[in-house]
Amino acid sequence: MSRKTIENLRYYMNEAGVDAWMVNSADYHDSEYPGDYFKLRSYLSGFTGSAGTLVVTAEEAGLWTDGRYFVQAEKQLRGSGITLYRSGEKGVPTINEFLAEKLPENGCLGFDGKTVSQEAYMDLQKCLEKKHIRFSLMEDLGNKVWIDRPALSCSRIWLLDPEYSGMDTAEKLKRVRAAMKEKEAAVHILTSLDDIAWLYNLRGSDVECNPVILSYAVITEKEAILFVQDQAVEDSVRSALTAQGIRICSYEDIYSYVETISDQDTVLLDSKRVNCALYARIPVGVSVVNDQNPETLFKAIKNPVEQENIRKAHIKDGAAVTKFICWLKKNIGKIPITEMSAAAYLDGKRAEQEGYLDRSFPTIAAYESNAAMCHYSATEETDTELKPEGFFLVDSGGQYLEGTTDITRTIAVGPLTDKQKLHFTLVLKGMIGLASCKFLYGCTGANLDVWARAPLWKYGLDFNHGTGHGVGYLLNVHEGPVRIHWNGKRGTQVVEPGILTSDEPGLYLEGEYGIRTENLLICQEAETNEFGRFLEFETVTMAPIDKDAIDWSLMTAEEIEWLNQYHQKVYDTISPALNEEERNWLKEACGRV
Amino acid sequence: MSRKTIENLRYYMNEAGVDAWMVNSADYHDSEYPGDYFKLRSYLSGFTGSAGTLVVTAEEAGLWTDGRYFVQAEKQLRGSGITLYRSGEKGVPTINEFLAEKLPENGCLGFDGKTVSQEAYMDLQKCLEKKHIRFSLMEDLGNKVWIDRPALSCSRIWLLDPEYSGMDTAEKLKRVRAAMKEKEAAVHILTSLDDIAWLYNLRGSDVECNPVILSYAVITEKEAILFVQDQAVEDSVRSALTAQGIRICSYEDIYSYVETISDQDTVLLDSKRVNCALYARIPVGVSVVNDQNPETLFKAIKNPVEQENIRKAHIKDGAAVTKFICWLKKNIGKIPITEMSAAAYLDGKRAEQEGYLDRSFPTIAAYESNAAMCHYSATEETDTELKPEGFFLVDSGGQYLEGTTDITRTIAVGPLTDKQKLHFTLVLKGMIGLASCKFLYGCTGANLDVWARAPLWKYGLDFNHGTGHGVGYLLNVHEGPVRIHWNGKRGTQVVEPGILTSDEPGLYLEGEYGIRTENLLICQEAETNEFGRFLEFETVTMAPIDKDAIDWSLMTAEEIEWLNQYHQKVYDTISPALNEEERNWLKEACGRV
Repeated sequence: MSRKTIENLRYYMNEAGVDAWMVNSADYHDSEYPGDYFKLRSYLSGFTGSAGTLVVTAEEAGLWTDGRYFVQAEKQLRGSGITLYRSGEKGVPTINEFLAEKLPENGCLGFDGKTVSQEAYMDLQKCLEKKHIRFSLMEDLGNKVWIDRPALSCSRIWLLDPEYSGMDTAEKLKRVRAAMKEKEAAVHILTSLDDIAWLYNLRGSDVECNPVILSYAVITEKEAILFVQDQAVEDSVRSALTAQGIRICSYEDIYSYVETISDQDTVLLDSKRVNCALYARIPVGVSVVNDQNPETLFKAIKNPVEQENIRKAHIKDGAAVTKFICWLKKNIGKIPITEMSAAAYLDGKRAEQEGYLDRSFPTIAAYESNAAMCHYSATEETDTELKPEGFFLVDSGGQYLEGTTDITRTIAVGPLTDKQKLHFTLVLKGMIGLASCKFLYGCTGANLDVWARAPLWKYGLDFNHGTGHGVGYLLNVHEGPVRIHWNGKRGTQVVEPGILTSDEPGLYLEGEYGIRTENLLICQEAETNEFGRFLEFETVTMAPIDKDAIDWSLMTAEEIEWLNQYHQKVYDTISPALNEEERNWLKEACGRV
Repeated sequence: MSRKTIENLRYYMNEAGVDAWMVNSADYHDSEYPGDYFKLRSYLSGFTGSAGTLVVTAEEAGLWTDGRYFVQAEKQLRGSGITLYRSGEKGVPTINEFLAEKLPENGCLGFDGKTVSQEAYMDLQKCLEKKHIRFSLMEDLGNKVWIDRPALSCSRIWLLDPEYSGMDTAEKLKRVRAAMKEKEAAVHILTSLDDIAWLYNLRGSDVECNPVILSYAVITEKEAILFVQDQAVEDSVRSALTAQGIRICSYEDIYSYVETISDQDTVLLDSKRVNCALYARIPVGVSVVNDQNPETLFKAIKNPVEQENIRKAHIKDGAAVTKFICWLKKNIGKIPITEMSAAAYLDGKRAEQEGYLDRSFPTIAAYESNAAMCHYSATEETDTELKPEGFFLVDSGGQYLEGTTDITRTIAVGPLTDKQKLHFTLVLKGMIGLASCKFLYGCTGANLDVWARAPLWKYGLDFNHGTGHGVGYLLNVHEGPVRIHWNGKRGTQVVEPGILTSDEPGLYLEGEYGIRTENLLICQEAETNEFGRFLEFETVTMAPIDKDAIDWSLMTAEEIEWLNQYHQKVYDTISPALNEEERNWLKEACGRV
């Protein structure tokens, strides 16, 4: 027995002469939060987790997902006839391995090529070449199977004023074209939505929490083209963009445009980001330089105007978080508070801030053992009431005109055990270690990460995620290319002055509790002398760190001094935005030790 | 006007139809200390520094060397007609750039291909391909020019007993062949002398301070061949090697041997180490897998027998160093002591140790500003008398049956300034930082180095050399592949349990003083738990660190405790080897703080 939706898909697969069909969770731009239009995999399988890939053959249907979703997937797939493949577990084949085994010689694999990157497609080709598999990339059977498929999101474009962007599009295009010239590329194809939003100083709301617009762009020496849904562009915006020399074309026209690229030309693109249906339409004779988009690093290095705004955003954001913590500390055990009601209270405090536009990601509010699940997000079913004991972890952020924030605080909502204090303190020592380091220019995230992990490693402890990710300016909260991670393969980007990164070590004890403390840092120049060019970090996040959770005997004098100075700055910047009760509470929370 | 030797060379260059001749400082095996036979560049140019390359054309002669030798080279080249090119200085062409400019179209570049690695040769080819340059690799004009050229070194092979090597050749060959199989290679060509010495458990003295034998090796599934000078092998050694199934061929026969490799076969070799004259003789159809020699990592990971011996070697070595420091501290200002006389005293104390064979590198003994020159080596001309003030830096090591040592101590021979104490303490904190770290398996030298540099970086200071290099077992004191250096390109090797590395941060103030503190560390397993597999370091070097030079206010409680425990261990292990006067001195020097 199997789901009706899968049977329907098989009907169309048969019609299309396809032996296996694959449906992942991506949109056409590799966005972090694909919209409803792209939830075909959920529609077909019934599994609603954010990550998962469905593969259907005439005989079988399998769904691959990772450890975050094993329980949920098992439940939702029950009775569907779809086999759950637990990715990463021993003996479980990868999707590519499964396909290599199940597909018949000379068979055909189909998927919507717009949702698969050129790089992933090349991996598939390599894996299946021995069986001479053909690929069907150009048709999305989803459109046939899913009758009431939601429409593509189509929000209205708005333009970011130079007082917020700090650099106009003309200047940005000049830098991009210089980078193209360096790589001897006449044409640059850009499909990552945050890079496009940065380049054209435009924003929208086509992706949850990411203020971007579904779009493509092509830059040549003479032209700058924006491919975007017609209804997304109001007349005033159209005029403003056109006045800047930007040609506006229809969203889908990118696919016919690339077919016209001259095979005398060289194209610069990032095959990790460009989808394979688009790539396939580039004429065969065209040379391709496959490299990271130059916009990615340009965008990561915040200009002085952006930096000044980011400081302002963090004062607003810190006021909201401080109000929330004060409320929580004063009301815990007195009124009923659940993870979701607490998150709603915090989201409300943020929404009160001037210039606030949206959350920068869905708020994580997790009490005690729930927080040990790194990607926990409370639902009606799991929502847990807080007791006046232990840890409550809240990871949240906002989108402001002045920038994007991301902050985690782990709050003692009552008495803690010695072990809890020890662990909180080790995480804090790591956070301070990275925030206060000074280093030579040329260091990468792989060099810097050990400062954040050293205190935990000394105790034989670790956390299974990166210590830091780049953060956009009123853009994606997870932004490349900088990553603070000791694994050299992940943390290869040199940390440049101006980059904005998170600093978020943590510790997760399954069934017990989770701890994470996160501030955002801007990399700044320190001294340059005969020994070299030194850099350091400026902490921009402004909110108290819970002194109730610290085991002071483990803190060095230097670390205590760092915390005292940080708290002084928090008090000085945040207190004007508070009422008297909150201000008094913050004074205490930020008092010198 | 130009040197007679250069004119002679030009005569033979003309005869050979060569437009430019290049002479570097290498032997046939990329050894660190090439023997007298290989000092052709010194003979031709008059410049005797250890690093330098001479290029001669019909019109010009140029010598390239690095910053260590600018002063010496200028002096020695005066009146020679040879232009000095200061490598690394702005506007100074590299050798390849010089050749690309000066060589005529379709011209010919000649050099002894046995002294240039295949990798360097490929770089040259790439650089000169536009001018269609031909290469003459097979003839060494040095043999014609240098009438009284010294003979190749030819020391006698001796075999290292299993009680020292810890693993017999049969077992080593098994591991090498398994690695060859993994890379699908039927033939493995090995030319690095320390790898060969390790594999066949043989030692000699063909390279200064490196107990190795001029040799090549070829390993196939069935055969293990050693190519070595006939006179190097005494009958008993020949029998012993033959009994182990090792075929012995003449040193030069490797060149005809590789011509016989079947083009059905795949050869495993390291093109960084194999010289291009040898490589050129491999038949064109043979497939080559260019990779690090498997012996390199096998050799770096010391087995339990080696580790136990290394601990013993360091007790002997520490006793010698301790006797030296005690003597120095007691006699400074009372008897005349110079850098060279002090070094001679130390070398003498080492030579008294049982199982001592040789120095592991030429002793560096440098007083005050001389020590600011990182590669300073006292000569009759520069030898400086020590005054009872400031720092005396001594970096030295020995070759023992029980292993190779390498230790640096910076000794206060009298009063120090506050700045000197500050700097000594920062270097010490860095040394302790690396020695006491705990880290997850998978970390590389690039991850770990920041622990050694953090205290200096905090003060805007740095040192311009690696923090750690691998150390051989009764082999080369500088041994790959592990390198502790924050630059990811240099420190890419994962730090494996069993590797022996130096930990030697320093600080050099030009014209003032130099500081370095160096211990050797063996990487060991720490706990493995649900968070991962943790590693840590065992310090094996045993000699006191000068407490007179420490600014205690800068040391954390943890660092002081580390030092106290270290000194306790030094006292416990070394004191039995000392006389009463020395023992009393050491007791004080190692006393708890």
